Amino acid sequence: MTKAHRAGPLFTDLYELTMAASYFAHQVVSTATFSLFIRENYLKRNFFVAAGLEDVLDELAAFRFSEQDIKYLQTTGIFSNDFLSYLSELRFSGEIYAMPEGTIFFANEPVLEVTAPIIEAQMIETFLLNTIGFQSMIASKAARCIHVAGDRPLIDFSLRRTQGQDAGHKVARSTYLAGFAATSNVLAGQMFGIPISGTMAHSYVEAFSGERVAFSAYSETFPDHSIFLIDTYNTIDGAENAVTVAKQMEENGHSLIGVRLDSGDMADLSQKVRKIFDDAGLYDVKIFASSGFDEFKIAKVIAQGAKIDAFGVGTKVGVSADAPYLDVVYKMVHFKDREVRKLSPGKMTLAGEKQVFRKSDPNGRYLEDIIGLRDDIIDQAKPLLNKVMENGEILRPHPPLQTIQDRFKNNFALLDDRYKSIFEHNAYPVTLSKSLQNLQERT
Amino acid sequence: MTKAHRAGPLFTDLYELTMAASYFAHQVVSTATFSLFIRENYLKRNFFVAAGLEDVLDELAAFRFSEQDIKYLQTTGIFSNDFLSYLSELRFSGEIYAMPEGTIFFANEPVLEVTAPIIEAQMIETFLLNTIGFQSMIASKAARCIHVAGDRPLIDFSLRRTQGQDAGHKVARSTYLAGFAATSNVLAGQMFGIPISGTMAHSYVEAFSGERVAFSAYSETFPDHSIFLIDTYNTIDGAENAVTVAKQMEENGHSLIGVRLDSGDMADLSQKVRKIFDDAGLYDVKIFASSGFDEFKIAKVIAQGAKIDAFGVGTKVGVSADAPYLDVVYKMVHFKDREVRKLSPGKMTLAGEKQVFRKSDPNGRYLEDIIGLRDDIIDQAKPLLNKVMENGEILRPHPPLQTIQDRFKNNFALLDDRYKSIFEHNAYPVTLSKSLQNLQERT
Repeated sequence: MTKAHRAGPLFTDLYELTMAASYFAHQVVSTATFSLFIRENYLKRNFFVAAGLEDVLDELAAFRFSEQDIKYLQTTGIFSNDFLSYLSELRFSGEIYAMPEGTIFFANEPVLEVTAPIIEAQMIETFLLNTIGFQSMIASKAARCIHVAGDRPLIDFSLRRTQGQDAGHKVARSTYLAGFAATSNVLAGQMFGIPISGTMAHSYVEAFSGERVAFSAYSETFPDHSIFLIDTYNTIDGAENAVTVAKQMEENGHSLIGVRLDSGDMADLSQKVRKIFDDAGLYDVKIFASSGFDEFKIAKVIAQGAKIDAFGVGTKVGVSADAPYLDVVYKMVHFKDREVRKLSPGKMTLAGEKQVFRKSDPNGRYLEDIIGLRDDIIDQAKPLLNKVMENGEILRPHPPLQTIQDRFKNNFALLDDRYKSIFEHNAYPVTLSKSLQNLQERT
Repeated sequence: MTKAHRAGPLFTDLYELTMAASYFAHQVVSTATFSLFIRENYLKRNFFVAAGLEDVLDELAAFRFSEQDIKYLQTTGIFSNDFLSYLSELRFSGEIYAMPEGTIFFANEPVLEVTAPIIEAQMIETFLLNTIGFQSMIASKAARCIHVAGDRPLIDFSLRRTQGQDAGHKVARSTYLAGFAATSNVLAGQMFGIPISGTMAHSYVEAFSGERVAFSAYSETFPDHSIFLIDTYNTIDGAENAVTVAKQMEENGHSLIGVRLDSGDMADLSQKVRKIFDDAGLYDVKIFASSGFDEFKIAKVIAQGAKIDAFGVGTKVGVSADAPYLDVVYKMVHFKDREVRKLSPGKMTLAGEKQVFRKSDPNGRYLEDIIGLRDDIIDQAKPLLNKVMENGEILRPHPPLQTIQDRFKNNFALLDDRYKSIFEHNAYPVTLSKSLQNLQERT
């Protein structure tokens, strides 16, 4: 497995460095705590799925400015040589509390908190927001698809239209984390060990003298792994051609895995194609569908009685099209010996180092969350933020991706269906502990 | 300057490789031409701006499977050893016609065409769509902002919420290409030589005992490069504090560059803040604004009479929030000695190797485009697709980014304002040449 390309400390907004330079000049070096959370004013999601922590920890454990980085900063003429020399020695020495990847969380709950000398804690803001924000957004979108698809497998097909390369790999990982079965993205397969999937495009069919010839040719190359794309000319004719070739395959001791529909009325066509295969006794040939699927279209075609066994889910999930960004923020909540609160209109923050406590019923089903102070003790509630980094060092090995997927599936089963609705806004109960409330009033 | 991380040939959908394996097994090796274009059914954009070609050419010139890549493909158990051995020797040997970066183009016009042995031409599909699609989408979004902002500079602030790391750098480059003045993204500054910009966040103000103390401290570190963020507590009080510190700076022979507003009613606050500075004789202190700006919000606050000198443009442009993907496709249009046309519902393509011809009036203003065959001769029309790669080799050095920005600005001035409307759908005239029409009828 190959790891993702490391961002390095220049992956930052310039103001993180100018603030750092000014802190350095004024010897503002005390410890600060920053809290990363998603604001409530974004009402398109009832819940979120934590993702991106592995990248965060790997990056911070290796955080250092290269000689080339320092040289570039020098050319900008903005920074003093003293400060640049300080940067060249800088390592991340802080402490991180975070929710494990695959944890379900809600607006306003800190998903990660950093405690470090203020320069270090500040400098990593842009990277943290980008890394946790995007991956959690995609995992949340994927979870909505998983919810409506039931036990039908979903496959990530988004790579061609993700927002850049890195996005493509993160989408493959984040959708898999939230229960997808596979990805079309070969590099993500290599990087993360995710199963890869894919067979043919329309151009393949067009490169042969006819559709049936193309299917035959493909089945010769992949006698036990063929899925034929049947809509290049006409889906019904395509299904008939697929039946003919599938029968030939059977005669040779092989079997067709399935066909893929990629255009037209999916409910109607899938029913007709299912009947064509069933009438031919090919009950085991699966019907895959692609073309613009997201949670809304999956729910719609299932409600219409589509006979679809698995969905290829592409662009709209890969860019989270209905909500292509989250209002994810990183705010200072504690500095030196005092709590910090921001009061800008619509941008309030909760002061204090925090913990999120989850209460469940006797069957483990989630009842409510309480945001409290980190040292609050709340009976029969599970704290969700774990200490994962201390003195800049990762405290335990990363869990395998499969473990994270399993954890997510277990978590998701404990969340009431009303919060999984893709249409209604239903707010899961999140309250503040007494001690956290008192702190806000004092601050 | 550092170059972007190379994707490598595994940056692909698996089906590109399975098709290639089947072509290889059947010795389907003839030359194919594929055309990359944006479908018309996406009506949120009147025009597009070509971007991403430099990445495409660099990647294809270096296209090869590493030993590690081949090993990974072997572990999948999908491919024959013969095919893997073929891949390990494969180079991209094709020819590419493309519009230069910064060219304005329209739906259905090929922005790039590839002619190569079918395996090679097919295998690069995912990479091409991802690379050209995303960057052109962002450049187009940025151009809409440039149009409504007039001569007010725009600065890319999106890095914290772009969809991954690579997206952040591509947004910085694509927005600069379309006329932005700078980016907050330090790494993009290093990679592409783009001017970088940024000063302070709310946390900086909060780290000091008061706002005025914070402004003073910052001005000591950056006496000639200070922009104060004035909304941490209350924008009007913040402006008064900024006046006090600006006066101190003047006494020391320096001057405050500006202040930044980041919340509240931007038109109203900017007018009040302008008056506070003007009343204090600080006419040269600029007002910057950030917080949710895109072309719609920029147009709105300008219409409301906002006194804003420059905008920080972030998330909504960095993810192209109103249109977070384009219906960009890559279709085979010619194979061996025949033209190819796909007729799936809503997914028609135009057969044939093509050229786009642009007609202008005597002042150079764009009149209409004609999509023709590559060897059409159309009087007084400029062909927009240039041959940029031959036998897998780049034909000329990449133009500097500044040259591309200049080219875009010149092009954009020649496009009638009605096509720049951010609200109305006005279709620029694009027709097909006689010979291209005839070809479609024959195919």
